[in-house]
Amino acid sequence: MTKRTFGVIGLAVMGENLALNVESRGFPIAVYNRTASKTEEFMKNRAQGKDVKAAYSLEEFVQTLERPRKILVMVQAGKPVDAVIEQLKPLLDEGDMIIDGGNSLYEDTERRTKYLESTGFGFVGMGVSGGEEGALKGPSLMPGGTKAAYQELEPILVKIAAQVDDGPCVTFVGPGGAGHYVKMVHNGIEYGDMQLIAEAYDIMKNALGLTNPQLHEVFSEWNTTDELNSFLIEITADIFKYIDPETNTHLIDLILDSAGQKGTGRWTIMSALELGVPIPTMYAAVNARVMSSYKAERVAASKQLPGPTTTFDGDVKAFVGKVRDALYCSKMCSYAQGMALIAKASAEYYNNEISLPESARIWKGGCIIRAGFLDKIKKAFVDNPSLPNLLLAPEFKQSILDRQDAWREVLVLANELGIPVPAFSSSLDYFDSYRRADLPQNLTQAQRDYFGAHTYERTDKPRGEFFHSGWSA
Amino acid sequence: MTKRTFGVIGLAVMGENLALNVESRGFPIAVYNRTASKTEEFMKNRAQGKDVKAAYSLEEFVQTLERPRKILVMVQAGKPVDAVIEQLKPLLDEGDMIIDGGNSLYEDTERRTKYLESTGFGFVGMGVSGGEEGALKGPSLMPGGTKAAYQELEPILVKIAAQVDDGPCVTFVGPGGAGHYVKMVHNGIEYGDMQLIAEAYDIMKNALGLTNPQLHEVFSEWNTTDELNSFLIEITADIFKYIDPETNTHLIDLILDSAGQKGTGRWTIMSALELGVPIPTMYAAVNARVMSSYKAERVAASKQLPGPTTTFDGDVKAFVGKVRDALYCSKMCSYAQGMALIAKASAEYYNNEISLPESARIWKGGCIIRAGFLDKIKKAFVDNPSLPNLLLAPEFKQSILDRQDAWREVLVLANELGIPVPAFSSSLDYFDSYRRADLPQNLTQAQRDYFGAHTYERTDKPRGEFFHSGWSA
Repeated sequence: MTKRTFGVIGLAVMGENLALNVESRGFPIAVYNRTASKTEEFMKNRAQGKDVKAAYSLEEFVQTLERPRKILVMVQAGKPVDAVIEQLKPLLDEGDMIIDGGNSLYEDTERRTKYLESTGFGFVGMGVSGGEEGALKGPSLMPGGTKAAYQELEPILVKIAAQVDDGPCVTFVGPGGAGHYVKMVHNGIEYGDMQLIAEAYDIMKNALGLTNPQLHEVFSEWNTTDELNSFLIEITADIFKYIDPETNTHLIDLILDSAGQKGTGRWTIMSALELGVPIPTMYAAVNARVMSSYKAERVAASKQLPGPTTTFDGDVKAFVGKVRDALYCSKMCSYAQGMALIAKASAEYYNNEISLPESARIWKGGCIIRAGFLDKIKKAFVDNPSLPNLLLAPEFKQSILDRQDAWREVLVLANELGIPVPAFSSSLDYFDSYRRADLPQNLTQAQRDYFGAHTYERTDKPRGEFFHSGWSA
Repeated sequence: MTKRTFGVIGLAVMGENLALNVESRGFPIAVYNRTASKTEEFMKNRAQGKDVKAAYSLEEFVQTLERPRKILVMVQAGKPVDAVIEQLKPLLDEGDMIIDGGNSLYEDTERRTKYLESTGFGFVGMGVSGGEEGALKGPSLMPGGTKAAYQELEPILVKIAAQVDDGPCVTFVGPGGAGHYVKMVHNGIEYGDMQLIAEAYDIMKNALGLTNPQLHEVFSEWNTTDELNSFLIEITADIFKYIDPETNTHLIDLILDSAGQKGTGRWTIMSALELGVPIPTMYAAVNARVMSSYKAERVAASKQLPGPTTTFDGDVKAFVGKVRDALYCSKMCSYAQGMALIAKASAEYYNNEISLPESARIWKGGCIIRAGFLDKIKKAFVDNPSLPNLLLAPEFKQSILDRQDAWREVLVLANELGIPVPAFSSSLDYFDSYRRADLPQNLTQAQRDYFGAHTYERTDKPRGEFFHSGWSA
């Protein structure tokens, strides 16, 4: 048997699917899994008839790979990744490369890249988005780390990635943890999109009284628009028509409203706090999931805290259009936040090496947030590489200004009816704060100076001069 | 000279003031500062004629203290605290105790407590709130760590703390980092209060057109009400009447609206994310300061993103009352979040040893968030120690329900006029989410199951059973 071009460690569903994706593009592969029975099962079933070599020890696995070795590790993020690296390291030769395709924290990837580069190996921390199906058929790939290693891997990665009009959904994102950083922000944006859709659903269901078939129609139609055409809107339309075979009713109405989450949404918030970048829509989305998990408390509270009795009595069809506009404007704010976060991280952590147009481009296909308007985001940053905020891009600015009245009307209705809209309102507050030359934090600074002598700057003096007053005197 | 009862290391303003506070209660003290000139200056001026012994080496300092030694460290949070501990350790004897009175991260305090307890010393991480004046005249003290050490210190701490109707504003908060944890949440609440006041100011100034003298009147009046009577409202009233001696105009109008922050607000958000506790009002407050710091970007954006031209045309005086109600309701939500966070941290990190009534009680005096209604919060948790949320306390529930219409009206106006109200709206969304038996996260779960096979629970099946559907089939 000839040496294998590519190896995969870890045969959970994402590992299996990426392995089969690589093999399907004509690359001979080797696979290894800690539990041998999992490997045997894979070989007997999905790998049957494919150009796959199973290895039952890491030594054997490493020996079957051509050099420089290309090893994709698909194990649980955290300590298991370090454990695999430690096991592999003594078996590798200079120039061999390890790719971590899990949802690792960018700081861990930073550390691992330094560690492996210092001993002559390559390390690529690669965000992979697209779920199981994307992994098999063409995910969005966000690799960062050792650039030379990426260049060795590129011929394979461009083939397994999703393909869109302007190429494969992969690029070298940047050094160290840059790939996982961009993947983390992708996930933060994904949280935002999902929460915004949930709030649109809540309003249309509970204020406007739309049925599931009507919601299916609305989301199907929205998916045909330039503004909202996207994978998440598409699957939302599907969800509203899905009938539960057991009860013969719409399954959506039987699903418990307690949403889970993994770490990446939370990490996005924490990183933004550290970098001083406002991402309130993403916080609202992460927090809404947390709030949803307090099911028993909410059920109890609902009996004690009645809301308004106001009902909607306007034109339902017209208002559905306003909800669409509110969703679009809020989504734009969320993407503006995400791109601003990547820009700041690129400047602070990655020598400005992360390209914003490329980040938007590689999300155009394969991943969960794939959407028509990512092409416009790409163009906005191509046209103006120093664009401070997406809201100011000519492509987007007017589209939001034209829709702001509708957006505000939706929030007004939600507030009047008592429907929680944390991501919608965080987005509007973001917009209204960002476009305000003067915010009321002059008072905050006065208070801080009053009780803590923290000093303040003055609008009639140059920046950088600090003053203190004896307020209580 | 007799041995000194209490020693203070670090003579920045908080250290000096706490030292003088201890001395003023009849305890002989010793002081030490790394830079000797600072000590000399203190001795020549503020310590003149007081029962203070200056030491110019740590050896000398330690020798002057009676045993078990009680040493308050007032240096910058972070590495300087560890450095002082390392320098002190070889000079101490068993049973001696170190108190860290800085704004240390609770996790650092946890680590230091374990480290010092393991070698026979006591360590008390003590939150101190009240600014310079509080430190001198009576702060709110939040000590945690080694209980035996606290008991030795108690006779001093109860004398230097602020005194209110039900005692001194100090209690043993709990083991390890519990004291600094409660201080951190105190600061998160402080951020929330300040931002809510800033938003009330923004609406009253920019929607209702109130002048600074009118704002002074309004806040002065609010400070007489049971709901809002508090230190922060009091100083806000003062601020609006303060005339800048240089320009002879209201200073508030000359202060730059770019608010600074230290770490504690951010830490509160991070801890809440880790513990899964929703604290959206505090996030909004921290984030508003971040947003305020983007001054140049905002000024540029303000020229490109015009808002609505709507103006307020109602009854100003009546609407001021609604703003007051909105402030009260939002503030209640913020305190509900803070107390829920302490409760969760107590359960997860501190063996349920943090008392919620005591936490509220020690904030009644001395600290920045001291306010009349903290007594009601204390009572709410005394009456029902397992109260799941402050919004459900009999003391508060009806007061919010009575005001919710006004609260909603204020948000509607802000949304219509384009005034950002992130903390007001985060609070209302918190209220409207918490009181909802069913949130739209059933859709979120359906989406997660669709693209990632994350599974979901069903309302018609027991909790803990997980289902997966082939949605796209």
